[in-house]
Parts: sequence; structure tokens; C-alpha cells
Amino acid sequence: MQLAKVVGSVVATKKNDFLIGTKLLIVQPMKFINKADEKEESKNGELLVAVDTVGAGIGETVLIVRGSTATRVAANESVPIDAAIVGIVDNIEIEEASLK
Amino acid sequence: MQLAKVVGSVVATKKNDFLIGTKLLIVQPMKFINKADEKEESKNGELLVAVDTVGAGIGETVLIVRGSTATRVAANESVPIDAAIVGIVDNIEIEEASLK
Amino acid sequence: MQLAKVVGSVVATKKNDFLIGTKLLIVQPMKFINKADEKEESKNGELLVAVDTVGAGIGETVLIVRGSTATRVAANESVPIDAAIVGIVDNIEIEEASLK
Amino acid sequence: MQLAKVVGSVVATKKNDFLIGTKLLIVQPMKFINKADEKEESKNGELLVAVDTVGAGIGETVLIVRGSTATRVAANESVPIDAAIVGIVDNIEIEEASLK
Amino acid sequence: MQLAKVVGSVVATKKNDFLIGTKLLIVQPMKFINKADEKEESKNGELLVAVDTVGAGIGETVLIVRGSTATRVAANESVPIDAAIVGIVDNIEIEEASLK
Repeated sequence: MQLAKVVGSVVATKKNDFLIGTKLLIVQPMKFINKADEKEESKNGELLVAVDTVGAGIGETVLIVRGSTATRVAANESVPIDAAIVGIVDNIEIEEASLK
Repeated sequence: MQLAKVVGSVVATKKNDFLIGTKLLIVQPMKFINKADEKEESKNGELLVAVDTVGAGIGETVLIVRGSTATRVAANESVPIDAAIVGIVDNIEIEEASLK
Repeated sequence: MQLAKVVGSVVATKKNDFLIGTKLLIVQPMKFINKADEKEESKNGELLVAVDTVGAGIGETVLIVRGSTATRVAANESVPIDAAIVGIVDNIEIEEASLK
Repeated sequence: MQLAKVVGSVVATKKNDFLIGTKLLIVQPMKFINKADEKEESKNGELLVAVDTVGAGIGETVLIVRGSTATRVAANESVPIDAAIVGIVDNIEIEEASLK
Repeated sequence: MQLAKVVGSVVATKKNDFLIGTKLLIVQPMKFINKADEKEESKNGELLVAVDTVGAGIGETVLIVRGSTATRVAANESVPIDAAIVGIVDNIEIEEASLK
């Protein structure tokens, strides 16, 4: 899974039947680049569209799952999705010592 | 899923039987790179060939799904595809404040 | 799917039983990088080994599918492959105006 | 699979039902970049969240599996995960001569 | 599939039950970068851990399959792996003319 931040939403009136009623949020996977003495959170990069089933809101840090297993969050596994929000992150703990 | 723009089409006379009758469009995944005060939409990058089942046209922004779940848009799930257009995007809303 | 060019072949005498009899071609995924006024076809990059079931030859432009759905081109879906040639491309049409 | 180092943990109170009770660790895939006479272990790069079922701890080097097969480590394969820790690494042996 | 070179091995005493008895080798995917008049074999890059079922040895060039279909080389498909060695490469033929 990846940590991501919810940054927006998408409206698509014409879509695959299985997607009707799904909540589509735009998320930005978070990457941490570690250098010498700093821990940088790089938020630049790709934007994904993920199906939300946990009630995530804009600005929240979430846990996303990608690939075919993302369909398991849906009521109907026939939904053609490849990314889903599976949790809202309360706390991230990084052991500084284990980072170079 | 990813946001993409339809930029062309492909004709392949000789192909796998399951692909006969499918509409193959060339799409360009959209990436947003956020820097200081700007929100850039980087449209450079790879081109994919996706099966269209929602009636997308050249120039439209669409929602694409990649990987094995893309087959779920097809009448026959045995079709060997790994990308499909699952929606035509009407509106994208990005919360500026949530972007760095 | 991706557009690719067939550039070679591989011989592996000792291999998984399910691969016996398969035709293994080396393909180079094509990426189009768009800059200012030019449309460049970048052929540098990774080489893949794909199973051919459509009779593709060296130098031809083909359509490849990657991931687990590639197995659907095989007579036996138990074959451990992750890339297959599913079509020989006759024509690629890119709408210049839709590219930046 | 990939070699990775466990660097932290994640707490997500609100999450998909199937994830309740899973231990979520933050891991950093290890990449080895080989240049001239040195073997560098690049630990910078993306952080993943993986489900642990082997009792891994912070600072340990582990073996991770990604994609849909990660679900096979779970008691219930319906769990929507795409990364799992499947082993704790005791020893890595790299043949220097085989590296350029 | 990808061409790769076997460069080492991994020992993990504590691991997922399905992995007990599997031979875990470290492989380096080979990438060919083509420039002007040269054909360079770039061996730098990521290292993967793949399950071997064809008896590959250190220094050999092999064919690897990645993703969920890698499990098909195992006696038990429930094994949580995402990379496997499926062949030992005897010969690679690249048509120079087809490379740019």
C-alpha cells in the first residue's frame, strides 16, 4: 500500500455501469526522500484517481491500495478499478535511526 | 485509475481473436507536477493503447483503468487487454491549498 | 496495451514446461515524447521478452499486453508469462492538435 | 520479491473491515546501484506500507512481495492489500564478479 | 518477461510457510540502451529476488516473469511470490538494423 493525500475529486457523468455511485477522489502518493539530516516529504508526482469507501475528505492522509486487489473494497468485485482508499491515517511513525 | 487524454487511434488488422471489434484508442496519462506557485499539467510521457467502451473521442479527457481489472469492461473477460477507458471526465476539482 | 517494435528473439533450451513451444520475441516498447513542435519517437529504454501468437516478425510494430492478462493468448492459461504480442499494427494515427 | 528495510509503522483507526487487526509496517525497498568498484546500497526512494505476518521489527531487512499475490499471506484472501512482508532476511550474498 | 542476470542469493530462516524450500536468487534485470552506434547493456539498476525452478546458477542469463503469473511455476499456486526464473537463456539475437 502507499500513503497518499486526498487533493481533489473527479466528476464523470458518462462512465462504466459498475462505476455508477462510486466516489472518485484524486490522491497524491507520498514519497519520502531521505537525505543526510533531513526527512523530506516529496509530494510532487503523479495523481491517481481512487475509489473511496472509508469516507475520506480533501486534505486527509490516506492508505491506498493499487492493482487488482483494489476491487475487494467494492460491493461488487466486477468493478473495473485499480486504486482504492482503504484507510484514513491517524499516525505515521518513522524511526529516524533506521533511515540513512 | 488515471486521468488521460485521448490523442489518437490504432489499426491492427491481424490480431488476437478476442480483440476483434474492440475500439483501440491511444491515450496519454496526465501527470500534475506541483512546484512553488504553479500547477503544471505535464502531458509528456508514455502513450498507452486502451480499449474504449464509453464512446470517447479524440481530445477528450478520460478515466482509464490499468492492469487485469481492465478486462471487466469487456463483454468477454477473456480478452487480453491491460488498459481501458472507463469514463469521460466532465470536471476535475483540485484543492489548491492541499497541494504544496 | 503498448505499441512496441520487434527487435530480436531469445532461445532458452532449459525452461518451464509450459513455455515449451512458445515463440519468444524481444520487443521494445515505443514511447512518444512530445516537445514544442516535434513529435519524437523514443525507442530507447527497456527490452521485454513477449510471447508471440500472431506471427509477428523482426522490425514490425506490434501491440503488446502486459501483466497477468497476457496469459489469455496462450492455449493453456497456466503458462507463466507476463507479456504477449496481441496484434500487428497497420496504422497509428495521432492527432497533432491534441498533443501539446 | 524485493529486499526492504522496516523503517516505521502506520496507525489507521478508520479502515476497510478486512484490514482490522493487520500489522501495517512502513518499508523501504532496497536498491543496489553498482558503479565501477563500489557496491552502493541506495536506500533513498519510495516508502511502502506492507502487511507483516512474520513478526518483523523496525530496522530489520525483510523480503516483500507486491501485487495481488500479497493477499496470500492473509488468513482471508479478500483483504485489499498489495504488499506484504514474507520473510526476515538473515543473509544476502552478492557475487561481486557478476556485477559490472 | 525480462532478461536478467543471476547475481546472488538470499537466506531467510523466518518466512511465510509457502516459501519454505523455495530457492531464492537475486537477479538483476538487463536493460539495453541504444545510442547512435552502440548497443549498451546497462546492468545497473534494481535487484529483484526471484524463485528459481529451472536450476539457474550465479552469473547465468535467465528469463524472469513478474507479477501474479510467477506463482504458476510453483507446485502450490498459493505461494506469495511476484517474480520467478522461468528459463535459462542460451542465445539472444538482436537485429541491429531494427534498433535506432
